[in-house]
Order: sequence, then structure tokens, then C-alpha cells
Amino acid sequence: MIDYESLLSRAGRRLQESEIRKMGTLIAQARDVISFAPGYPDPLTFAWQDFREIAAELLTGADGAVLQYGPTRGHKPLLELIAGILTRRGVTAAPEHLLVTTGSQQGLDLVARVLVDPGDVVLIELPSYTGAITAFRNVQAELVGIRQAEDGIDLDHLEAIVARIRREGRVTRVLYVVPNFQNPTGLLLGRQKRLRLLEWAARHDMLIVEDDPYGDLYFEDCAQADDTRPMKAEDAEGRVVYLSSFSKTLAPGFRVAWLVAPAPLAARFEIAKQAEDLCTPSLDQRIVFEACRRGVLDRQVPLLRKHYQHKRDVMVDALHRSLGDAVTWPAPRGGFFLWATLPANLNADAMLERAIRHQVIYVAGGAFFVDGTGRNRLRLSFSAPTPERIVEGVNRLASAVREELAALRTVPS
Amino acid sequence: MIDYESLLSRAGRRLQESEIRKMGTLIAQARDVISFAPGYPDPLTFAWQDFREIAAELLTGADGAVLQYGPTRGHKPLLELIAGILTRRGVTAAPEHLLVTTGSQQGLDLVARVLVDPGDVVLIELPSYTGAITAFRNVQAELVGIRQAEDGIDLDHLEAIVARIRREGRVTRVLYVVPNFQNPTGLLLGRQKRLRLLEWAARHDMLIVEDDPYGDLYFEDCAQADDTRPMKAEDAEGRVVYLSSFSKTLAPGFRVAWLVAPAPLAARFEIAKQAEDLCTPSLDQRIVFEACRRGVLDRQVPLLRKHYQHKRDVMVDALHRSLGDAVTWPAPRGGFFLWATLPANLNADAMLERAIRHQVIYVAGGAFFVDGTGRNRLRLSFSAPTPERIVEGVNRLASAVREELAALRTVPS
Repeated sequence: MIDYESLLSRAGRRLQESEIRKMGTLIAQARDVISFAPGYPDPLTFAWQDFREIAAELLTGADGAVLQYGPTRGHKPLLELIAGILTRRGVTAAPEHLLVTTGSQQGLDLVARVLVDPGDVVLIELPSYTGAITAFRNVQAELVGIRQAEDGIDLDHLEAIVARIRREGRVTRVLYVVPNFQNPTGLLLGRQKRLRLLEWAARHDMLIVEDDPYGDLYFEDCAQADDTRPMKAEDAEGRVVYLSSFSKTLAPGFRVAWLVAPAPLAARFEIAKQAEDLCTPSLDQRIVFEACRRGVLDRQVPLLRKHYQHKRDVMVDALHRSLGDAVTWPAPRGGFFLWATLPANLNADAMLERAIRHQVIYVAGGAFFVDGTGRNRLRLSFSAPTPERIVEGVNRLASAVREELAALRTVPS
Repeated sequence: MIDYESLLSRAGRRLQESEIRKMGTLIAQARDVISFAPGYPDPLTFAWQDFREIAAELLTGADGAVLQYGPTRGHKPLLELIAGILTRRGVTAAPEHLLVTTGSQQGLDLVARVLVDPGDVVLIELPSYTGAITAFRNVQAELVGIRQAEDGIDLDHLEAIVARIRREGRVTRVLYVVPNFQNPTGLLLGRQKRLRLLEWAARHDMLIVEDDPYGDLYFEDCAQADDTRPMKAEDAEGRVVYLSSFSKTLAPGFRVAWLVAPAPLAARFEIAKQAEDLCTPSLDQRIVFEACRRGVLDRQVPLLRKHYQHKRDVMVDALHRSLGDAVTWPAPRGGFFLWATLPANLNADAMLERAIRHQVIYVAGGAFFVDGTGRNRLRLSFSAPTPERIVEGVNRLASAVREELAALRTVPS
């Protein structure tokens, strides 16, 4: 028998599976499970008819480049189009700042590889996106969590943590933030805090990785476009690496996303991407470009806001009805997620088995906390299931919670 | 001014740009250049009509998964289909051995990350594929080259090198080989050597990374299917990580490739891939699957063999006519490349500027050698240009070579 463990690199031995992806495997195995787990967009919203027409027009063979290798930076017309999208978000980006990535997950991976050495400290919100956590852990970063208030990251805590890390003589160069409808909390970083974070980064010679997949998907009853203005828009000094994506608005199956960075960093990300996949798929980039050029994205986004706002309403109402006494949550102002807190004695991870028996699934909160806390939290995605399934899923969840509470009462503690 | 260099990781500072990709940028800037540089398949051979029909059928919206996030391992029907392709190559692969990758470049990157520590020695043919060289260099491997004979890697040299590395107390766990129509030499690894390499790997507790993008594309006048049988087919012990791809047969723009590995390693590669891009694009995987299911691949491959064999003939004939006295090459028995040796006093890299003035481009040989040699070599891809352009390109190249030789004669040495 070959001892494969002994043949792995240190990085290879320490690789960490994403909790959310594990969940995907679970769902695939179970029957009729209502999934509140992964942050999947609703495929009913995809512009199928447009994509079908566009694909048919692209695949005539008139332009061989449609299925050829392409430039690592990305399909040039798409890059120009992205620059236009960014302008509307207040961000000025020239070609040398832009890179198409194979999903924002690749952007996170490039950031981790190019900016983080093994043993470096990466600062991250408590809680934060598991895909970022694994990307940073895979380069053997140490992740240190920063608390969040209702308007996002706690700046006093951030100052205290940085002071401590620097006092200990350790290296930290990167803060990772999801300012718009944060994953998993759904929180929105306050406007003043955005400016103060930029000042903070300048003062401490830090880079901010601003991950913004959900900014367009604000809910008009409690948020507006201005609330989602990226920090990158005010980043005169060049401290922000900004990531965004078409995955939550057009469709994730294209794996087309992008990053904006100071030119010297963008050049490094490009070289790192060369060795990762040479280029993002050519057909997908062109379908996304054509869909945007024809106005599909502009037409879709207002509809998506309403669509997901309605689903949020359905979930919030159902939770109030069936779990209002046991569970609390901050009202989601955009995005895909509701972040629920169970009674303190419940453990969301331990309860998952019971939930699966009730044919409902979520992501247990612990996966999002780099400090081992969050055991009584859970992330509920309302984006993919139909309204009927959301109601039914919340009812199933309520049954699981009631049973779990009852079971705890019968066990002597 | 921010000193971005100081904010990079050690890996980030050492990233190396691929020579071939640089070339792509050069071509994009020049006009009417005939490119023998990148190993692009000929888009005229792509099954446009089939792809168009398949895309239209997939994009009806009937199956939301077509544009949704998918499993990291890959689209299950595609994995099963790949297992069937492998059976015909003599390789038995169960689902736990298989992983769809976003191009074989991602496979190389996963291999590098999961198996190689900074400072480890990776053994690689002299010369070898630049994409592999950069993937290994990006994890800060030291690359040590093994000479090749006409039937591939020199086993005596390999033994001597391993003995030296182990004597020095250094770690080496990986040998990278392209056995079929090697990139850049076009050489075919002999059948006996394949078996002896497996014995060698067992004796030294090494893994072999067998990269096989070109195996299907043998030229029937001088090679046959049996010559291309992968080492993986005889790998009873589990020493081989096998990479292959649809890029050279169906189209590279889909970025759909795969790897086969012992189950414990495949599981690690999967986790590493999660953090790199979550999954390979869903639509592309399904188009590739459907194309194969409908017999497109089986129909294409024999045509591609003839198509590229004819282009090889055209290039070889043109070279004989216009550079037969100055340039030598081993006859390509398959694949996309002709590996040319210039007179010893010529430097292919220095000559490139002159070649571009003559509107022809190639990859200078030095890029493929990890030991700094190969300055008078160049790789000519005959795959993408039309036969007429191949002839014209070789004529332009001949003019550049003649001028370069004349220039050298007039310079006192």
C-alpha cells in the first residue's frame, strides 16, 4: 500500500473542504430535501431565451475565437463592458486594472496566492464567507476574526486586533470584507464606515479585498443603490482589490466574474491565473458579453430585486409564524441570506442530522466563524426554493427545532 | 506611492509569466502575423453545427442545472462518459478516481499545489511544456531536467539525477512526463520505457504525472493507437496521475479536461479545486458531454488525425525546401508541434524580433528548458494556420533565418 499522505505537500495535507460544498453532496444523496443551504440563484430567473439565441448566433463558426483559447485577462469587449458597469457603481477602471476570473472564487484564490504567505494573518469578518476562508486557509494563512455590528465590521475591534498583531511582530497585509448583504449575515456596511475603513487601510499600509457579488440585489423597501456604493469608488490611493460577478445576476454556470485592482497587482493576478487555467472559458465570456450588450442584465436586475425581496418576505413571514419565539435574525436588506440565531443551548451542526430527517437543510453557523464560535447560528438561503417550498421548508425546520429543544430538555445536562 | 512589491507574498513575487502566453499578447498587437507559436487547434475543425444544436437544446430552461453551480468533481454523466473514453485507452477509472478540471492547466496547478512543497525538486523532461513549468515554479519547486532520447526520457539520466537528489537529502516526489507527441518535441515515449518508468517510480516511491492531451492525434503513417497507450493503463500500484483533455479534439474554449488519480489523491485535488473555482462551467461540461454522447468526438478524431498529419506534411515539405540545409527536426508522429534546431550559433530568442518583422512568430526553445539550454531551438505549431499560411510562414521564417545568419557573419565574433 502506498502511503499517499506522505506524498502530499504541507498545503495538500492541510486543505480544507468547504462546508457549503459538503452540503451539496448531502443534498445530492437525499430525496425531496428542501435546501436553504447553498447560495444558489433561482434558475427560473435566468434569461434562457436570450442565452439560447445568443449561443446559436455565436456558434455559427464565423468567428473561430468563440471556442479557441483566449487572452488570460479576458475577452476584450467584455472587459470594456465591465468597465462600464463599474462606472455606474462609481468605480473608474482602465484595462490594466481589470481581470476576468473563473468565478469570484478564482479571484479569491488569486488574491490569497499573490498576497498571502504561509503564517501571515488575514483579517476577516466574524462571521464571513466560507469560500474566502478556505482560499486563505489553503495558502496557510492564519485567519483572525473581527466582530460585526449591525452596520458591519467593528472598527474599534479592528484597530485593537491590528495593534495586537503588529505588536506580536506578525505580518498582516489583507482585510477581507463583504460590504453588501454580507455572506452569511446579510448585513450592509454603513457608508461612513466604508470611508473610515479606507483611512484605516492607509494608516496601517493594508490592502482591502472587497468582495461584492450581491451589491446589485438590494431590496427597495429598505435599501437603495447609494447604500451599496463600493469602497473601491473612493479608493484614490489604490488600497482596494474589488471582486464582483455575473453569477448572482445572469447565472453561475458561466463562471464569469471579475476583479479590479491597482495595475501592479492586477498584472500579478493575471500571471497567477495563467498557470491556474490559462483563460476563463471563451464561449461563456461571449454569452455574458452579448447578454449585457443586449440589455439583458439591465432588464434583469430590477426584476431580481423584486423576486428575491419577495422570497425574503415569504421566509421572514414563515419564520415569524413558526419560529418567532425561538429564533431571531437581522432583517436582510438584500442578497440571498437570512442569518438566524437559535436558542443558546442549541447546536446547529448537531441539529443538522435531525433537520435532514425532516428533509430540510441549511448551513450550520460554525463554518463561517474563524474563531470557533457561532454554534447556535445558521444560514438560510431563500434565493433558490419557490415561495411554497420556503414556507414548507421553514415548517420542517420548525419541527426540527422543536424536537431538538424537547430532546435537550429530556437529557440531564 | 504604495510599494506594491512589498505587499506581495513570496509566491506572488516569484510568479513567472508563460512564454507562450506572452507570445499571444505579441500576436494580438501585430498585423498579418503568421503564428506558429501557440498550440491552438484549428477552429475550422470544430463541430460548430453540433455545438449549436446542442446549446440550443440545453438552453431551453427545462433543466435549471445547466446554468447553476455544479458539483466540484464534475457533471456526473460526463464523468461516466470519461470513464468510457479511458476504458478504450486501457485505463480503468471509477468515480472516486476522476475529476473534471477547468482545462488540463488546472489539473497541473492542482498537482503542483497538492504534491509539491516550496523547495521540493520536480523532475521534468528536457525540454518540456511551459504551462507545467510555470505551475510547478509557482509553488516554488526547483525543476531538474532529464534528457530525452528519440524514444523519450533517458532512463539512465533519470536514475543518476534521482540518486544525486536523494544523496543531497532533498525531497523529490514527482516526475512530470508528456509521453505522447511531447510538447514541444513531438516525441513518443517508447512502449518498453513506459513500463520501466513505472518500475522506476515504485522503486523510488515517486509519483508520475502523465500529461496526455495529444494521444488521440497520432499520424497513421508512422504511429498507431497502441503506441499511445498510457502508462496509467499499467499502473496497478497507483503511482500515476493521468491528465487529459477535450481541448485539442473538441475545442479549448470550453476549458473541459480531466484527471485520473489514486482515490486519496483525487479527493485532495477535488478539495483544492473547490477553493480555485468551485466547479468547471456547467454549460460547457454539458455541451462536451452531449457532443461525445452523440458521437461527435468519435467522428472527429479520425478526421483530426488526417487533418493535422496533412499540415505536418505541408510544414515538413516547406521546411525541406527552404531551410533543409540550415534546420533539422525529428519527424512529428502526432500532435501539433515540430521541434526545430537552428545552426548552433543562432539564438532563437534573439531572432524573434527579426521574425516578427517578417510577420512570422514561433516559441523560442529556451522557454521549454529548465536548465537554461535550448537557445538554438524553436517550436513551430502547424496546427492552426491553413496549409497556404504554413508554406508562406515557413518562407518568412527562412528569410529571417538567412538574414540572421548573414548578420552574424558580418559581426566580428
